[in-house]
Amino acid sequence: MFDVIRYAGAARSIIEAGQFLYERGWSPATSSNYSARIDDDHIAITVSGRHKGQLAAGDVMVVDLQGRPVQSRARSSAETRLHTVLYQVFPDVGAVLHTHSVKATVLSRLCAADQPLVLEGYELQKAFTGIDSHETALTVPVFDNTQNIDSLAQRTAAWFRDNPDQPGYLIRGHGLYTWGRTMEDCLRHVEAFEFLFECELETMRVRP
Amino acid sequence: MFDVIRYAGAARSIIEAGQFLYERGWSPATSSNYSARIDDDHIAITVSGRHKGQLAAGDVMVVDLQGRPVQSRARSSAETRLHTVLYQVFPDVGAVLHTHSVKATVLSRLCAADQPLVLEGYELQKAFTGIDSHETALTVPVFDNTQNIDSLAQRTAAWFRDNPDQPGYLIRGHGLYTWGRTMEDCLRHVEAFEFLFECELETMRVRP
Amino acid sequence: MFDVIRYAGAARSIIEAGQFLYERGWSPATSSNYSARIDDDHIAITVSGRHKGQLAAGDVMVVDLQGRPVQSRARSSAETRLHTVLYQVFPDVGAVLHTHSVKATVLSRLCAADQPLVLEGYELQKAFTGIDSHETALTVPVFDNTQNIDSLAQRTAAWFRDNPDQPGYLIRGHGLYTWGRTMEDCLRHVEAFEFLFECELETMRVRP
Amino acid sequence: MFDVIRYAGAARSIIEAGQFLYERGWSPATSSNYSARIDDDHIAITVSGRHKGQLAAGDVMVVDLQGRPVQSRARSSAETRLHTVLYQVFPDVGAVLHTHSVKATVLSRLCAADQPLVLEGYELQKAFTGIDSHETALTVPVFDNTQNIDSLAQRTAAWFRDNPDQPGYLIRGHGLYTWGRTMEDCLRHVEAFEFLFECELETMRVRP
Repeated sequence: MFDVIRYAGAARSIIEAGQFLYERGWSPATSSNYSARIDDDHIAITVSGRHKGQLAAGDVMVVDLQGRPVQSRARSSAETRLHTVLYQVFPDVGAVLHTHSVKATVLSRLCAADQPLVLEGYELQKAFTGIDSHETALTVPVFDNTQNIDSLAQRTAAWFRDNPDQPGYLIRGHGLYTWGRTMEDCLRHVEAFEFLFECELETMRVRP
Repeated sequence: MFDVIRYAGAARSIIEAGQFLYERGWSPATSSNYSARIDDDHIAITVSGRHKGQLAAGDVMVVDLQGRPVQSRARSSAETRLHTVLYQVFPDVGAVLHTHSVKATVLSRLCAADQPLVLEGYELQKAFTGIDSHETALTVPVFDNTQNIDSLAQRTAAWFRDNPDQPGYLIRGHGLYTWGRTMEDCLRHVEAFEFLFECELETMRVRP
Repeated sequence: MFDVIRYAGAARSIIEAGQFLYERGWSPATSSNYSARIDDDHIAITVSGRHKGQLAAGDVMVVDLQGRPVQSRARSSAETRLHTVLYQVFPDVGAVLHTHSVKATVLSRLCAADQPLVLEGYELQKAFTGIDSHETALTVPVFDNTQNIDSLAQRTAAWFRDNPDQPGYLIRGHGLYTWGRTMEDCLRHVEAFEFLFECELETMRVRP
Repeated sequence: MFDVIRYAGAARSIIEAGQFLYERGWSPATSSNYSARIDDDHIAITVSGRHKGQLAAGDVMVVDLQGRPVQSRARSSAETRLHTVLYQVFPDVGAVLHTHSVKATVLSRLCAADQPLVLEGYELQKAFTGIDSHETALTVPVFDNTQNIDSLAQRTAAWFRDNPDQPGYLIRGHGLYTWGRTMEDCLRHVEAFEFLFECELETMRVRP
């Protein structure tokens, strides 16, 4: 059982995040999925296949941390396990956003196999919680895409345990996962990642 | 004879599609044309030469599947036959959108003669109806541009029969045609195509 | 003397054009100037140095076809003569828009001295009044920039007489001039030019 | 002591500037800081770490020209000294905007060490106060980024004294500082710089 008022607040934060992310072009064509923590055992998460710029009541459901629907017959995103594993590993995580931008898609395809994306020397790295200087390197792993979500969830969980301070990862040809204590933090992380991805691509454009 | 309420609904879906597509920059300078099915014998379609971001009552007419105006003296798009042939070949098609984006224009000019555009390894390919994995190749033919629309309509019809599951085609230096069961499906297809075109061009920019 | 109601209508069309053009990023930082014909001897034109996205009553004045202020002590754009010469040469011209986009600026600087920009094979060329096929070449001259506006006005007038059907020209490192029978036609020309400039630059980006 | 009505007006100009700059993508992810002069001894400035598109009462505080909070326990931007030094050196400066765009970030990283960015031959250079021809060169220094703000403030002050007519500078991998007599002038300078940065990058894209 979960507190319904907390569900309503989580759903509201997801709906508003969708309006912002869709408008920016980072969640096109019913792609992407978003979640927010309700309590230790439950999260609110987008129903599969909905238009992310037009989320409404009926588009956000509840699942437990094993990804099972709670008090609903709707079907959550196929990638639900990539969300729940984050809430399981990190008790402080309050929101998870998965977006599908052109920049994240292209950049992740350009990274060599088994090579992470390394971002350094950007003042905007300070937008990530816990980073207070541009003189650091931010390492973003790129996992190969797969339709086997359980397997990918296990790989990400192993990586989280080894890299507890990293704020996000990419899936090749697919998109970005990032998280934060609050939805506000998480949205700031999306903005910062998109900014840095654009900087990297713009640099590659003029210095191919 | 057609049901006028169904015409009004089709016209409404076309007007709203125009606002969206114009705003994105995919239907500039009175280019593009849109249609939606009314019944087995009639479609609603944009009147020739109208501003697609400002469509209103008076800008959407009815034609039969031979492209002849019904209950109207307005002139439909010069490309009306490219729409009607789709409704003739595919009984399930409920909407057709033809857009003129910079990306579709440039990419179609860069494809070698008689070579289709091949899109593969993108998670977003799943936005097309009937595709459930990124591990597929989406083949988009590029027809040479012509002002002889009847001839082009026949070529597209032959291609539809050989490729009944493909969701769209390009005309070189001209734009995209895509379709779907509903206008919502069709708009999702436009968004997905534009996303993939942008990914392809961005990749070519940084890896010329 | 001019009809004040016609002045008010011309001013309204200029104010609305400014909102559109500024929003698109084609008239940044108080650049650009716009005009619309009132009658055979008078045009409405933007006052010098105003924010083009925030034009209001007080930002559009009247000049005669020699560029002299009429019933106003305001100062019109320094480039007023580039407008009036168009109204003098072409009795059918009803509106002139001069915009400063990044694309027009960059493309005009990339053209070799004395070489025009040639656009061909684009369906969107049909957006220009009088063109009904993509199988034509649209030639856009690029004049060198100068602060001597009278001299430039004379050069453009000579070009108009030799090329009465061309819808626009570029000034190097500066921007686009285009015109039309109505403000609506003229705005369609700006959109079409910007689309074609973007296509040319995008092609150069991926095929440097 | 300062006039509270003047504080309210300065805060209002900062809040509106934030809405504009955030919307353009020039102040993402809580980056950037803005200020406006209240009087000879006080400025209004953004509180540290706030969302620049959503500034409200409570997000703009007062500091003196040494950067010390006045009548507030809030913490101003870490870069407050980069603002106050401008108000100290230039009695005419009424507003200072520091933005973090992708273009400024990338371009500043591409400039060789100790080499300024030089902009010339652009009509839009006339958007900067006091420049009336494109036939000038605008020199924009690029300071190395540092978390030692006092040291950077001293370096900028020395540069201001040697270059009193230059309207802005870049910090490598970080962003743009520009200023003006009024907030309106200062916003025009941001727009003009962003336009010119985009022109430079676009040129590099097609002529790498």
